[in-house]
Amino acid sequence: MKLLVVFAHPEERSFNKSLLDTYVKHLEAQGHEVKVSDLYKQKFKAIVDRDDFENLEKDARLQVAYASYGAYAAKKLTKDVLDEMDKLAWADSVIFHYPTWWFSMPAMLKGWFDRVFACGYAYGVGEYNDKRFGDRYGEGVFAGKKAMVITTVGGSPDQYSDRGINGQIDNVLFTVNHGLLFYTGFDVLPPVVIYQTDGRKEEGFNEAVSEVTKRLDSFDSTKPINYRKQNFGDYEIPSLRLKEGLEKPGETGYSIHVAKN
Amino acid sequence: MKLLVVFAHPEERSFNKSLLDTYVKHLEAQGHEVKVSDLYKQKFKAIVDRDDFENLEKDARLQVAYASYGAYAAKKLTKDVLDEMDKLAWADSVIFHYPTWWFSMPAMLKGWFDRVFACGYAYGVGEYNDKRFGDRYGEGVFAGKKAMVITTVGGSPDQYSDRGINGQIDNVLFTVNHGLLFYTGFDVLPPVVIYQTDGRKEEGFNEAVSEVTKRLDSFDSTKPINYRKQNFGDYEIPSLRLKEGLEKPGETGYSIHVAKN
Repeated sequence: MKLLVVFAHPEERSFNKSLLDTYVKHLEAQGHEVKVSDLYKQKFKAIVDRDDFENLEKDARLQVAYASYGAYAAKKLTKDVLDEMDKLAWADSVIFHYPTWWFSMPAMLKGWFDRVFACGYAYGVGEYNDKRFGDRYGEGVFAGKKAMVITTVGGSPDQYSDRGINGQIDNVLFTVNHGLLFYTGFDVLPPVVIYQTDGRKEEGFNEAVSEVTKRLDSFDSTKPINYRKQNFGDYEIPSLRLKEGLEKPGETGYSIHVAKN
Repeated sequence: MKLLVVFAHPEERSFNKSLLDTYVKHLEAQGHEVKVSDLYKQKFKAIVDRDDFENLEKDARLQVAYASYGAYAAKKLTKDVLDEMDKLAWADSVIFHYPTWWFSMPAMLKGWFDRVFACGYAYGVGEYNDKRFGDRYGEGVFAGKKAMVITTVGGSPDQYSDRGINGQIDNVLFTVNHGLLFYTGFDVLPPVVIYQTDGRKEEGFNEAVSEVTKRLDSFDSTKPINYRKQNFGDYEIPSLRLKEGLEKPGETGYSIHVAKN
């Protein structure tokens, strides 16, 4: 495969960076092509501001979505963003690899999404009519590509279980897997979550390596999360409410957006 | 009240900044004291890196939680972070005001949390024994203070409703309200969500002002979200799984962590 890894961690000798290096070597040895966007190493600019939009007039009010749409259409986005788009276009598969901090991604990676997932490119695309509400949730620029999250968390599996106080891990990751990745058209594979990472020694590191490589070795045969597509009959247009009766009896919350068959 | 507003938007003439200015004026006219951390205006450094930890030895591996813990204990955190902590200590109430981008906060604000919510201050505090699992979820540095989110979203109320494709808004905000704010001890008031903000004209702006001021005028009498406290009997220690039978029959997902009585 042609794999892009978008990676965010500030330390070259971290658990996560060592894990990255190990699985990249493993994949390359198998003949896969791998590119890595190492955001800290690239000193990626993570904060959206008016410098992002070269064609925005000096005195114009910055409305981020409109400015992004205009700059993308006029091919006036900055080179660092265009470089990331090129890598995304090249890849057939993308891994987002980051430590979970405060139940979400580091600001560095959030800023990558804020800037690279431009309007007219990753959202605000497609037709809006009585049958469709844009190319979103199952359609979009990344249709035909696969994505997967690899993330480390401090808590235990119990704490992220169905009854765990942190919330079930699939819910914690919903705004990423569904809101960012499925939204933009990716087939989203179940995430690899490395629990209780802090203080792991060599044995714990090796366990993580083996967990990740096992998942990468079966990448092609892994079924994506069965999120319901937006424009294929499950949702009312334009309210985008799930039609009555599609969920399991009594089912509520995020899980109603995952088809069970 | 003594209110701190932590605000993140890149444009001085934005809907959000105008809204902020309007309600700050309204509150001050009533005799409340207000401080604003306007993160873009402050050019707040949003990216965690080794420059944050002045006492970390040059060649030491950066482990963020440990470095944060050490720097906080040694009073060696950077001045910008200490200034934010001073404002938080001063305030009895804190509003987090931001546009929702990709179902979460702008990188600028996420980075504020990544840096200001230091280990030993906002997490990694309190005793761990067979009765307690630290001061978290209902206890912590911000106990006795109130917090509330004000956020704008592009989607409609339907799209964020119980059956809406974006997920129910309380779920979308769970990792903020529960994972960041309740976790660190705040009483968390229900959020103010301004829907379909893009393209609002003066009338739409005035509606938002009236929605926000109404909520601010009843701030003192508004009941916090009834999240279950961690160390008061609802959860097994240390698995932190909700004890059986506390949720409504059939209830699943994040909502089991909100007590219904």
